[in-house]
Amino acid sequence: MKPLVQKYGGTSVASTERIEAVADRIVAAQIAGHPMVVVVSAMGDTTDDLLALARRITAEPPARELDMLLTAGERISMSLLSIALQARGRPAISFTGSQSGIITDGRHADAKILDVRGDRIRAALAAGRIVIVAGFQGVSAEREVTTLGRGGSDTTAVALAAALEAERCEIYTDVDGVYTADPRVVPQAVKLARIDYDAMLELASHGARVLHPRSVEVARRFGVPLHVRSSFNDSPGTVVEPMERIETDVVRGIACDAEVATLVVSGLPAGPGGAAEILAAVGRAGIRTLLLLQAPAPSGGELAILLQEADLERAEAALRPLLALPGTQVRTDAQVAAVSVVGHAIHSHPGTAGLILSALEGVRVEWISGSAICVTCVVPRAEAHRAMAQLHARLGLEGASPPPV
Amino acid sequence: MKPLVQKYGGTSVASTERIEAVADRIVAAQIAGHPMVVVVSAMGDTTDDLLALARRITAEPPARELDMLLTAGERISMSLLSIALQARGRPAISFTGSQSGIITDGRHADAKILDVRGDRIRAALAAGRIVIVAGFQGVSAEREVTTLGRGGSDTTAVALAAALEAERCEIYTDVDGVYTADPRVVPQAVKLARIDYDAMLELASHGARVLHPRSVEVARRFGVPLHVRSSFNDSPGTVVEPMERIETDVVRGIACDAEVATLVVSGLPAGPGGAAEILAAVGRAGIRTLLLLQAPAPSGGELAILLQEADLERAEAALRPLLALPGTQVRTDAQVAAVSVVGHAIHSHPGTAGLILSALEGVRVEWISGSAICVTCVVPRAEAHRAMAQLHARLGLEGASPPPV
Repeated sequence: MKPLVQKYGGTSVASTERIEAVADRIVAAQIAGHPMVVVVSAMGDTTDDLLALARRITAEPPARELDMLLTAGERISMSLLSIALQARGRPAISFTGSQSGIITDGRHADAKILDVRGDRIRAALAAGRIVIVAGFQGVSAEREVTTLGRGGSDTTAVALAAALEAERCEIYTDVDGVYTADPRVVPQAVKLARIDYDAMLELASHGARVLHPRSVEVARRFGVPLHVRSSFNDSPGTVVEPMERIETDVVRGIACDAEVATLVVSGLPAGPGGAAEILAAVGRAGIRTLLLLQAPAPSGGELAILLQEADLERAEAALRPLLALPGTQVRTDAQVAAVSVVGHAIHSHPGTAGLILSALEGVRVEWISGSAICVTCVVPRAEAHRAMAQLHARLGLEGASPPPV
Repeated sequence: MKPLVQKYGGTSVASTERIEAVADRIVAAQIAGHPMVVVVSAMGDTTDDLLALARRITAEPPARELDMLLTAGERISMSLLSIALQARGRPAISFTGSQSGIITDGRHADAKILDVRGDRIRAALAAGRIVIVAGFQGVSAEREVTTLGRGGSDTTAVALAAALEAERCEIYTDVDGVYTADPRVVPQAVKLARIDYDAMLELASHGARVLHPRSVEVARRFGVPLHVRSSFNDSPGTVVEPMERIETDVVRGIACDAEVATLVVSGLPAGPGGAAEILAAVGRAGIRTLLLLQAPAPSGGELAILLQEADLERAEAALRPLLALPGTQVRTDAQVAAVSVVGHAIHSHPGTAGLILSALEGVRVEWISGSAICVTCVVPRAEAHRAMAQLHARLGLEGASPPPV
């Protein structure tokens, strides 16, 4: 039988009691016959607590040592889970990212997985053991400990599932699946029994926190079936799978990223040079632009950038030397949110943009931008929840879910 | 210049403030010209806290996973110390036991160091970096994470000092040197400016907690000069060095191990078989005997064992199957302490035993046993402090210290 990969997030392993509950769940899956590989995050707020210790020493801890520090978190949760499984009479063994053969590039705090060797995992599975793997971490070719960035444990789990040709990868979290919108914001939101990789990727990229976007990318690339479930109940959850297996609704869900900001540079030189230099400077500062809009204007070009609110200050600092030209001005707004509508062919579907804008009646839409399967509206942060509720109601999402499988 | 190895214990790195103070001390030593290698323990009670988490899950956590769990502790302290040094503009890098090439046998929770490769440490030192190394931990030939047992960070530091041919190994702790007796028990105790390896080994083996006995053994074998100092002040501390450099007092100090117990088996078969089987069973249970006494008696032999109090219950369980013989009886006493007098030629010195016994006037001495340089007296635990005070006064230790160097 093919192995099953399960991933448990920080909330699911936040205490020894929760770890014991997870152990019971793993034993049940093993009894059902699966060779088991389990990826864990650090317990509860451990990662934040460790980060706070480092920040008490210096505002900018070096990334290499920060990775060394933070990887202590999964080391604790994985060994405790292995201890709990062995206390239940199940042979288990825990492996760090390095021991698991999670080979990454050398970019600390944001490393990318280059290869998954997994020899020790395969040997342990062949010996009948439940294998516990530290999420979020790997090792570079230079034998340096690396981390994959926030949410990286999802990526670890999917990459392992791909390398081990697992039957599927189950992501256990504190919500019981993927919803048409955040149910805390839109009470009418409906759980999706199924969603395809592309729509899931858009939802995850635009603020739906249930899965990390990179994990969805890896799952799509290697065709790993993903199953999002709650570790707190036995609700069936949501299956993320290739497109062909499911019907193609135009609209699949609504996501909101409330921690964004806009930065608009106006009065740029007429040629393309001005905007290109601005973007190059932003890139050099390591800042990811979420949306870009460049419009010509009579008084010089205007460039609008949507970025993470946390990056705004650094972006302004990076641009300061470039803005000495007379007439060049920068406006920023840290009080915005990006509300995204995700679904297949949404952008090309006749009338979708019009439908969205009319659904947003009464909301000040500052910016609208569409990709093939996603339309993002930048709105004042205070109006974001109302925007989501109106979109959810007017786009017919309340009856969106196919029946559970 | 030869490298300097410093080791900081858990109290010395118990908070970010203490870690910053340690960083200042390291910078001062580096400015004095030394290539620096710094070994750290886990912060404060971290190791105990992690152990308590595991014990909440099961009374007997498997040793392999416990090692994985506990090694998270030094990972946290070492990366924070490296962060603090870099915040002071000093290039620094932290290495785990595995990255440092601390190769051990595979005996979890009590691994022995087989080899110190240290390639990455040497390369980092050559690049002008301060190297921070996780104490207490290593890696086996099977690439399993191991720990060296309690106090193992001292051993890591001394083994590294030997492998790197360091000028000396400085052990920073919360006391400012080696005393003739525990100053909290015997206020008249005097700090020793110097002590030789053999006497230090006996003191450490008999309850003086300032140095771990194995670290003294390694220092003696490789001739590594050890320097015991406080991380809380600039007091000169105690130098541990070969015998030839110092005068040979008969008595160097008094140690007390209060966490011991006696187990006496009486009515054993007359031949040696009975006692041998008892000792074999105790050995198989992994229990270390601190003292042994076998006396013939008219009604059958008697075997007395001094052991750690924590091992008593396991020892009784191990012996239960052997004690079915009629007439065989076991007495135990968990309320004893072992008070040891350490010094050169103490056992062979005429009259020493008599002097010790007369110094212990009014104390019930249950057992007395001497090696070449150490006499151990087993006394009721409640009388141990009085025994130490009387021995300290009567054996002339109050004027024992040579002047500080």
